[in-house]
Amino acid sequence: MQKLNEKEIQQHLESLPGWEYRDNAIETSLEFKDFKDAFTVMTRIAFEAESQNHHPEWSNVYNNVSIRLSTHDAGGVTKKDFELARAIEDVIDDGN
Amino acid sequence: MQKLNEKEIQQHLESLPGWEYRDNAIETSLEFKDFKDAFTVMTRIAFEAESQNHHPEWSNVYNNVSIRLSTHDAGGVTKKDFELARAIEDVIDDGN
Repeated sequence: MQKLNEKEIQQHLESLPGWEYRDNAIETSLEFKDFKDAFTVMTRIAFEAESQNHHPEWSNVYNNVSIRLSTHDAGGVTKKDFELARAIEDVIDDGN
Repeated sequence: MQKLNEKEIQQHLESLPGWEYRDNAIETSLEFKDFKDAFTVMTRIAFEAESQNHHPEWSNVYNNVSIRLSTHDAGGVTKKDFELARAIEDVIDDGN
């Protein structure tokens, strides 16, 4: 899996509003009604991550979830990160 | 809920190996076999947190989970944090 260059990353990000490229990863922050809603979405994302065998760096404080995606083995952002980001957006869209 | 002083915090920590007091919170880091095991334990902790109406600041990277507990309203560590820490330890012990 090849590391994408910054131009490629920015092109992919055009279709992912709310995501940005920072410190060699793509990142987003999500806000929910409360902890239950936040953790419910995290659980759905966990299943997507596991099925893609590609996992986020993420943190949660009450109703906030911060997600950071990069591909360790490639030392940067790859298509795998964008696949997971799109799956995450699908999960969020389903909830609305 | 009253903020505990450092002496009280250290006393409580004596019965919580693996936890330490840092930056006005109590913290621990847990390592599991893989992501599935880590997220399974997170899910069980999430239910405990919700039932106590007291929630962690926590992060996960693959098989690692870092947890930080403090009581925002009290501006520090309170008994609520130790109640949740003990519930977290019970969850972990159950898994072994």
